[in-house]
Amino acid sequence: MKNLSFPICIFTFLILLSLPSYGQKNSKPNIIVIFADDLGYGDLGCYGHPTIQTPYLDQMAAEGMRFTQFYVGADVCTPSRAALLTGRLPIRFGMAGEGRGVLFPDSGAGLPHSEVTIASLLKEAGYSTGMIGKWHLGHLPEFMPNTHGFDYFFGTPYSNDMRPASNPKLPPFPLYRNEEVIERGIQQETLTKRYTEEAVKFIRENKEEPFFLYYPSNFPHVPLYASEDFVGKSRRGLYGDVVSELDWSVGEILKELKDLGIDDSTLVIFTSDNGPWLSQKEEGGSSGLLFEGKGSTYEGGMRVPGIFWWPGTIPAKGSTEALGTTMDLLPTFARLAGIPLPKGKVLDGVDLMPVLSGQEQAVREFVYYYHRSELYAIRKGPWKAHFTTRPSYSAEPAKRHETPLLYNMEADPSEKYNVSDQYPEQLLEIQKEYQRHVESFTPAASIMEIKIAD
Amino acid sequence: MKNLSFPICIFTFLILLSLPSYGQKNSKPNIIVIFADDLGYGDLGCYGHPTIQTPYLDQMAAEGMRFTQFYVGADVCTPSRAALLTGRLPIRFGMAGEGRGVLFPDSGAGLPHSEVTIASLLKEAGYSTGMIGKWHLGHLPEFMPNTHGFDYFFGTPYSNDMRPASNPKLPPFPLYRNEEVIERGIQQETLTKRYTEEAVKFIRENKEEPFFLYYPSNFPHVPLYASEDFVGKSRRGLYGDVVSELDWSVGEILKELKDLGIDDSTLVIFTSDNGPWLSQKEEGGSSGLLFEGKGSTYEGGMRVPGIFWWPGTIPAKGSTEALGTTMDLLPTFARLAGIPLPKGKVLDGVDLMPVLSGQEQAVREFVYYYHRSELYAIRKGPWKAHFTTRPSYSAEPAKRHETPLLYNMEADPSEKYNVSDQYPEQLLEIQKEYQRHVESFTPAASIMEIKIAD
Repeated sequence: MKNLSFPICIFTFLILLSLPSYGQKNSKPNIIVIFADDLGYGDLGCYGHPTIQTPYLDQMAAEGMRFTQFYVGADVCTPSRAALLTGRLPIRFGMAGEGRGVLFPDSGAGLPHSEVTIASLLKEAGYSTGMIGKWHLGHLPEFMPNTHGFDYFFGTPYSNDMRPASNPKLPPFPLYRNEEVIERGIQQETLTKRYTEEAVKFIRENKEEPFFLYYPSNFPHVPLYASEDFVGKSRRGLYGDVVSELDWSVGEILKELKDLGIDDSTLVIFTSDNGPWLSQKEEGGSSGLLFEGKGSTYEGGMRVPGIFWWPGTIPAKGSTEALGTTMDLLPTFARLAGIPLPKGKVLDGVDLMPVLSGQEQAVREFVYYYHRSELYAIRKGPWKAHFTTRPSYSAEPAKRHETPLLYNMEADPSEKYNVSDQYPEQLLEIQKEYQRHVESFTPAASIMEIKIAD
Repeated sequence: MKNLSFPICIFTFLILLSLPSYGQKNSKPNIIVIFADDLGYGDLGCYGHPTIQTPYLDQMAAEGMRFTQFYVGADVCTPSRAALLTGRLPIRFGMAGEGRGVLFPDSGAGLPHSEVTIASLLKEAGYSTGMIGKWHLGHLPEFMPNTHGFDYFFGTPYSNDMRPASNPKLPPFPLYRNEEVIERGIQQETLTKRYTEEAVKFIRENKEEPFFLYYPSNFPHVPLYASEDFVGKSRRGLYGDVVSELDWSVGEILKELKDLGIDDSTLVIFTSDNGPWLSQKEEGGSSGLLFEGKGSTYEGGMRVPGIFWWPGTIPAKGSTEALGTTMDLLPTFARLAGIPLPKGKVLDGVDLMPVLSGQEQAVREFVYYYHRSELYAIRKGPWKAHFTTRPSYSAEPAKRHETPLLYNMEADPSEKYNVSDQYPEQLLEIQKEYQRHVESFTPAASIMEIKIAD
């Protein structure tokens, strides 16, 4: 607090006191974030998929709030995870790479320790913090989850395709418990079941104190693996089987919370790290009516399922059209835990509780769509302007638009009808915001290209 | 019955006796069919639209059964309506036109009286039969609804764009009560409210006896009109406002059934006549993740929302992946009313009650996709073969495929990956069915091109 003068501290304290409090049994609710990998906007039953049945997530949505306009902080894996955990755009701390979009097993860097993660923040507020799943924010010891605020870690350091099958030089795909590799060459068919067991165990062991559980699944990222109980279960093929098993996993967690009687003191969030990996064809997912997928700043790349559940606090109101992003989680959780935001950090998230509690229709006005280190598009209310576009996973170069393309995302969610000619004022406002935004900070030097010294 | 020998009659009677009966209060349930116009597969909240809120239809789906693979009998308006009301493919009775896809105000023909409609059939079984909405099966007096089994008609003879605004030679858009034109130049903003009032009145007046109400709305067909209460209500623009008002209308009907205590003796079905009219851009709808729209034999043209509701009989089981079509309604209703199927008619529908009651996962194996008088595609289980394709509403000619395109509709619902090379046996089976089907009957001469004699 050395940078804050005493009157400012008092003022902050008074503001915290004056905010409404949420939850019933516990003044600090438990928090669980379940983060799917490459799951598309259209891949759940409650988001309209015809042949992937997700009864547990549909039920979670029916009992909670389903966002229809929920976004991630980047169009690919590593920076999207960094955005969620820090509440900040990765461009601010060197994780919006230029040459490389994500970290690889030969990467020599990771999430900088100058950043404050949700885990570090909640740990300071007395939470037990656990992570079960895929990290992908630096696999060297000094960047692993236990160095970023997690008391407990069980999972994999990077993506499930980063193993000898894709590159013979890679080590067998490792499974960690805290800092230890406990297995090499994971049988990926077993992962979702083991993650689920670990998650349930973590919840049981920490049920008396507030806990934060971050559960980023490795799936449905390719290569796809489901356990015997789920292979062949879905008409959608293996992709559907994998999503079904993830749905089951979510169901097990919600059931455990109900069985323990802590459902009304636990906020659970389900979302995905980016859109579907379309170039994988049948093995990739679907963005439903949205255009494009992972790796794109069209909606299909960055708009994802977003389901919030907290019985008794979040009304079972069906869907909301409010804008939200994964970067909003950190400030929302800070508010719920009654602690100040990380000091000296510009946050890109806003507290979503006014929407989640049903008090406000909307709290967020802008969404920023970065592809690597370049700001490609901005959404302001219903309007989205594309300054630059490029097809995802293609050799085609990016195209800078002299007059940005303008779409009304609410009337035209599939981004079909460029209306920049008809709405010059709306376009101008977004152009001004573009200038304001890029001039408001200096991007950090990228750490994404750093390799392990040979 | 003169074509049936006595033993066959007895046999039929015994079969009817041996079938399980459904419903509680009334051995013959009331039946309501609500039929939207040009509403796409992706245009309801429960089918995944992000900015069209349809709380009443979502609730109807949650209390009943939502089909994710439900089809119409033709890719445009007139023949689709004919298919629903007769349980037969329009090619069998001259309504799969060659030159003209639908009837126009200068058309001199209509649904042939050799056909048996749901209304005629149920009227014989003692039902009161009412129709409120758009007919479009022949506007000359001898073809209007009262000649086809409806005791009561309130509505319009054809589509809402067939009026002087689209062609100065046309008469002002007329509104009928039975055979009388009661208004010319309808204020279309008022239509949904007036239809709703009429529907509620019909239900109240007929609540003591079994009734059949057919409510084909004029909307969301363009030109779009919503009442003052709904204009500006949806973020999706006027199209969304119109769907919102239709959703409200459905809600009013379900509420009335509950208020009258006849909800457990009433089967209500909501569906659409074909996919979205994509060439209308923002004024047309969305087929969600499906490809193409109205006028196409790709899924977006012929797969539509299909929601079945009958508290106490249809389990509130969420969604079903069973195949169904609008042609299945007639045999389903005949079964429920305990009457034999129309004699001497080959039906293209099957009784859906085994699926609706939760006893069976599926009852239908094939779907036939006609564009006008040509069979373009057939689906058998998950496999769909396109023998001919063409872009909808385009001058481009149809393309006949020497090797038909083959898609797995369950694994690849967006029809992206032609797998005819990989599954030659599945393709062959559909090719055999194609031959069997086209050789099984002689198409009737088309009546669609007949014009009123000048």
